[in-house]
Amino acid sequence: MKHVLVTGAAGFIGRAVVPLLAAEGWRVSAISRRPPAAGQPAIDWHAVDLFDTTATADLVGRLRPSHLLHLAWNTEHGRFWQAPDNLRWMSASLSLLLAFAEAGGTRAVVAGTCAEYDWRHGFCQEDITPCMPHSLYGEAKLATGRLAARLLADSGTQLAWARVFFPYGPGEAGGRLIPSVIRAMAAGEAVRCSHGRQYRDFLHVQDVATAFAQLLRAPDQGVFNIASGTPVSLRQIVLTLARLAGWAGTPDFGAIAVPDDDPPLLVGDIRRLRALGWQPTLALDDGLADTLTHWRHHHPSRSL
Amino acid sequence: MKHVLVTGAAGFIGRAVVPLLAAEGWRVSAISRRPPAAGQPAIDWHAVDLFDTTATADLVGRLRPSHLLHLAWNTEHGRFWQAPDNLRWMSASLSLLLAFAEAGGTRAVVAGTCAEYDWRHGFCQEDITPCMPHSLYGEAKLATGRLAARLLADSGTQLAWARVFFPYGPGEAGGRLIPSVIRAMAAGEAVRCSHGRQYRDFLHVQDVATAFAQLLRAPDQGVFNIASGTPVSLRQIVLTLARLAGWAGTPDFGAIAVPDDDPPLLVGDIRRLRALGWQPTLALDDGLADTLTHWRHHHPSRSL
Repeated sequence: MKHVLVTGAAGFIGRAVVPLLAAEGWRVSAISRRPPAAGQPAIDWHAVDLFDTTATADLVGRLRPSHLLHLAWNTEHGRFWQAPDNLRWMSASLSLLLAFAEAGGTRAVVAGTCAEYDWRHGFCQEDITPCMPHSLYGEAKLATGRLAARLLADSGTQLAWARVFFPYGPGEAGGRLIPSVIRAMAAGEAVRCSHGRQYRDFLHVQDVATAFAQLLRAPDQGVFNIASGTPVSLRQIVLTLARLAGWAGTPDFGAIAVPDDDPPLLVGDIRRLRALGWQPTLALDDGLADTLTHWRHHHPSRSL
Repeated sequence: MKHVLVTGAAGFIGRAVVPLLAAEGWRVSAISRRPPAAGQPAIDWHAVDLFDTTATADLVGRLRPSHLLHLAWNTEHGRFWQAPDNLRWMSASLSLLLAFAEAGGTRAVVAGTCAEYDWRHGFCQEDITPCMPHSLYGEAKLATGRLAARLLADSGTQLAWARVFFPYGPGEAGGRLIPSVIRAMAAGEAVRCSHGRQYRDFLHVQDVATAFAQLLRAPDQGVFNIASGTPVSLRQIVLTLARLAGWAGTPDFGAIAVPDDDPPLLVGDIRRLRALGWQPTLALDDGLADTLTHWRHHHPSRSL
């Protein structure tokens, strides 16, 4: 039986991917500093701090998983871009990957980020677009991916590095664009926006999960964008949410200034991932409707 | 009074821009090998072959226009990409620009093409995206633009080089995407398409015309994309046409194979043009509706 060790299993993406892997027949183990009180079914929790590299290596040596899905990182909204602990996450991630390879692991799939690319280019393709991060987070992820590829090159352990674009959906941090628009509408507050002409690449977390599951199964190595490949303007996101929510207000486009270096378009090419047989399944309207439904269920006192 | 000499005035873009310039108070002169029988009002036609550089220089020396709008080139659908006469157009264009500068011209605006960019990058920005044409047409336009900038650098004649993306609208050549879809629907034929997931940048010819008019008025030099900045999938184009036409059929997406190097996204950044005060005015639905209306008016016997 294939056995995957998942880090970040209690996080936004982890919560979507773990049940999927369990349903696909994987034995799933998870590392967490604080395993959730109500654990997910079919998952083995192990309380380890990834920054404790000795304890982590011991655990990996005991579990001897065939696969590793490494999602854990600092993702605290608004803080993670320049947080100094990005460097600790880099070290911890490389230690984890080495321990996994030494324990005979066959395949590791690791979450990178679209922030590794030079965003000035806008349309991000794995083999063509230059990498030039504009944040410590992007630099640390990029360095981790490059060092990991080199460290694992002759180890017999495969590596797929997944550059994740803009995941959204149930459970996304409340301060991010989509939840914050939903909250403002629900609270009867003004919805203040930038001009909204920026095109971004949003992918529902359920499709992010199937992409990671596909990358675990595939034999292919290298860098893969996890994205929708579909440019959507922020204006369209906000207007679609307003329509789906039956919100009668008018979003205040232009109320928030846009930085000079704000990229007008940021979209991932998904030909590499499509070539593995994956494709996104949730259209934007359906994904946003699902997000709204989840929000209403969890915040029934609000007015939406 | 400002006096603009327009080449290609009888072409697809020229027919849209000339009335606009006349309405803005320009004196408009036009060069054409064969001036149209029913000339446009307020336009001075001059029958000259641009390949006859002596006759062209003589005319320019007599007219002494303050401005030049050079649109003429080989644009024969399906042929222009690799046509050998792209090289003759390059020479003729450079000769025209030199004659214009020698006759005291103050500002030239010349139609370049999005095919000057390296299309693998997809999101095309004047100052960032590398140029690497994949066609003789693109190479000849790129060389013309670069040589022109150098030749005019110390001449006192300003140069704006406009890279035009995908113009559409009334009068577009019948073999191109939008007219051919309209014709197939009207003829009751199957609408055979590729997968349709390619994103392109379509701009209604009326907005192309206002962009050229803006570039004639502005003092800024260099390269400017003329584009919508809005990624639209070919699938959306076809489905929107079907809806607007009330066509009851089902487009056959996937019937036509896509070449391996077909770019998944090809969009122009329009921040430089926006900074001049220009913006596109026709939403895609309105632009396509206008195109359909024009088509019905000119082909009343067809069924749409």
